[in-house]
Amino acid sequence: MTATDIAIVGVGKIARDQHIPSIAADPGFTLAATVSRSGGVDGTENHETLDALLEARPDIPAVSLCMPPVPRYEAARAAIAAGRHVMLEKPPGATVAEVFALERLAREAGVTLFATWHSRHAAGVAAAKDWLADKNIRRLRVDWKEDVRKWHPGQAWIWEPGGLGVFDPGINALSIVTEIMPVPLHLSAAELSFPENRDTPIAADLTFAGPGDIDATATFDWRQEGGEIWQIEIETDAGTLKLTEGGDRLFIDGAEQEVANAGEYPELYRRFAHLIDTGASDVDPAPLIHVADAFLLGRRIVTAPFHD
Amino acid sequence: MTATDIAIVGVGKIARDQHIPSIAADPGFTLAATVSRSGGVDGTENHETLDALLEARPDIPAVSLCMPPVPRYEAARAAIAAGRHVMLEKPPGATVAEVFALERLAREAGVTLFATWHSRHAAGVAAAKDWLADKNIRRLRVDWKEDVRKWHPGQAWIWEPGGLGVFDPGINALSIVTEIMPVPLHLSAAELSFPENRDTPIAADLTFAGPGDIDATATFDWRQEGGEIWQIEIETDAGTLKLTEGGDRLFIDGAEQEVANAGEYPELYRRFAHLIDTGASDVDPAPLIHVADAFLLGRRIVTAPFHD
Repeated sequence: MTATDIAIVGVGKIARDQHIPSIAADPGFTLAATVSRSGGVDGTENHETLDALLEARPDIPAVSLCMPPVPRYEAARAAIAAGRHVMLEKPPGATVAEVFALERLAREAGVTLFATWHSRHAAGVAAAKDWLADKNIRRLRVDWKEDVRKWHPGQAWIWEPGGLGVFDPGINALSIVTEIMPVPLHLSAAELSFPENRDTPIAADLTFAGPGDIDATATFDWRQEGGEIWQIEIETDAGTLKLTEGGDRLFIDGAEQEVANAGEYPELYRRFAHLIDTGASDVDPAPLIHVADAFLLGRRIVTAPFHD
Repeated sequence: MTATDIAIVGVGKIARDQHIPSIAADPGFTLAATVSRSGGVDGTENHETLDALLEARPDIPAVSLCMPPVPRYEAARAAIAAGRHVMLEKPPGATVAEVFALERLAREAGVTLFATWHSRHAAGVAAAKDWLADKNIRRLRVDWKEDVRKWHPGQAWIWEPGGLGVFDPGINALSIVTEIMPVPLHLSAAELSFPENRDTPIAADLTFAGPGDIDATATFDWRQEGGEIWQIEIETDAGTLKLTEGGDRLFIDGAEQEVANAGEYPELYRRFAHLIDTGASDVDPAPLIHVADAFLLGRRIVTAPFHD
C-alpha cells in the first residue's frame, strides 16, 4: 500500500496532541504539509492559507480540517471543489444544514468526506454496540460532567452564539449514544441553564423518547469539580451495560470487559484511509441534530454568572 | 380509480378550513372517520382516540394528522405501527430527530409517509422553481411579516418552548426557499428577538450562505400591522423573481406570470394519493433544520414584553 499524502489545516492543540502523532504512526498516510498562520510544524512544509496550499500542491489528495467549527464549512467547500478528500473534526459544522450541504458537494465531486466523531472510537464503544444490538432497552442514563475551567480555560468562543457551551463535550456523549443504541431516540424535553452573562449553556438536562417505552435522560454539566464523570449506563432486559471514562472502559452487569483498540485518533485515520480506498463517505449529522433540537425545544433557565 | 378511505385526526381550525373540504373535493379519497375529543364532524363516524380508531377500523388505510406538532410523533408512530399511510401537517415534528425517526419507521413498515409543507403548493412555487433551475443566484430577500394578534389570537402554545414563535409562519417561507433554490443554503448568522415574558421569538433576522457568493437574508416579524407581507425576492444573472402573497403570485422582472393550480391543500391530497399509489414517501426535514439551526446559532435579543 502506498501512503496517501495528507495536509493538516489548523495546527492547534488538537492537531498537535492527536492528529499529527496519529498520522505519523499510520502507514496509510504521510503528513505532506500544514496550513497555519502561526508557522505549522518543524520540518513540514507550511502554507499560510488553505487556498495557497490547494494551489501549490495539487498532488496532495487529502486534507484534515482541525480548525474551530464556524470556518469549517468554507474550508471544506474549497477543498472539495479542488477535488480533495476531506476529514472533519467534530462537530462537522456550525449548523446541521451545512453538514448536509457538504455531503451533497462531496457526492457531486466524487470525493470522500469523513465527518468524524472521535468518541465513537473510544475502546469500549464497538463492543457496547455489538452487545446492545439484540437487547430491549429499558433505561438510558448519560452523565457527562467536567470542569470547564480545566478543560476550556479562557476559550471565549465556546460562550459565543454557535459555540455550543456544555454541548461541546456533551456532543461526544451523544455521538456514542447515537452509535450504540439499537433504536433511534429523539428529544422530548430539555432544560438548558445559561449563565446570566453568557450566550451558551453551562448545563443541560435532556429527556429522550423512542419507538418503545424507554426512560432515557442525559445530564451535561460544566460545573463539575473534583474529577470528570463521562459515563453512559444502559439497562436492558438482559442486564446492564456501562461505559465509563468517555467510552474507554466497558462493564456488563458490573464485570469489566476486555476492550482495546489503537486509540480514538489512530482509528479515525485508519477509517479515513479505508473510506478513500473504497470511494465512500461517512457523514452522520445525528449528534448535532440532537444538539440543535435541544436549543429548539429546550426551556431556558438563567443561572449564576460565569467568570473564567 | 377507487377512492381510498382516510381518517382525519385532530378536528381543529385547519382540519375544518382546509383538510375536510379538500378531501370532499378529491375523487381519490373518502373521509371515513375522524378522531376528536370534541365530537368531530356532523355525519362522519368519530372516535375519541387514535388508538380506538386504529382498533375499530383496520379497513381505513390512511390517516391525516392535523393536531399540534408536539403530540404528532406518537400519533404517527402508532399509525405506522398499525400499517397505515400517514400524512403530517407542517411542521412534521417538534424536533428534527423525530422526523428522521418517523421516516425510518415508515420505511421499515412499508407504508407511505408524507410530511407536508402546504406553502410549497402555493400557485407560483412550481413555476418559480422551474425558472430558477438554470439561473445563478446573486441575492435572496425573504420578508415574512404578519400580526400575531390577528393570526394566532390567544394561542398560548406558540409561546411555549418548542412552540416555534415567529418561525411557525416563517417555516412556510423556508419551505418555499428550500424547494425553489437550485443550490443548498445554510444559516451563517441569526438574531432572534424574544419578548422578555415569552419563551419563543417574536421576530428573527437570518443570514444564509451557500456554495457560491450569495447575499441571502430573511426577516420574520410578528409585530407587523396594517396587512401581511409574505414575499420572497430572488435576484439572478438573468433577472429578478418575486413571489408575493405567500407564493400565490409570481413576478419575473416585474411582469406578473400566469400561474394556477387546484390550491395548496387539494394539491397536498392529490400528491398523497400519488405517493400511496406508487409506494413512495416524501419526507423533507430541510425547513425544520433551518429553524433548529437558527435556535442553535442565533444570538438572543430580549425585547418588549408581549401581551395578547
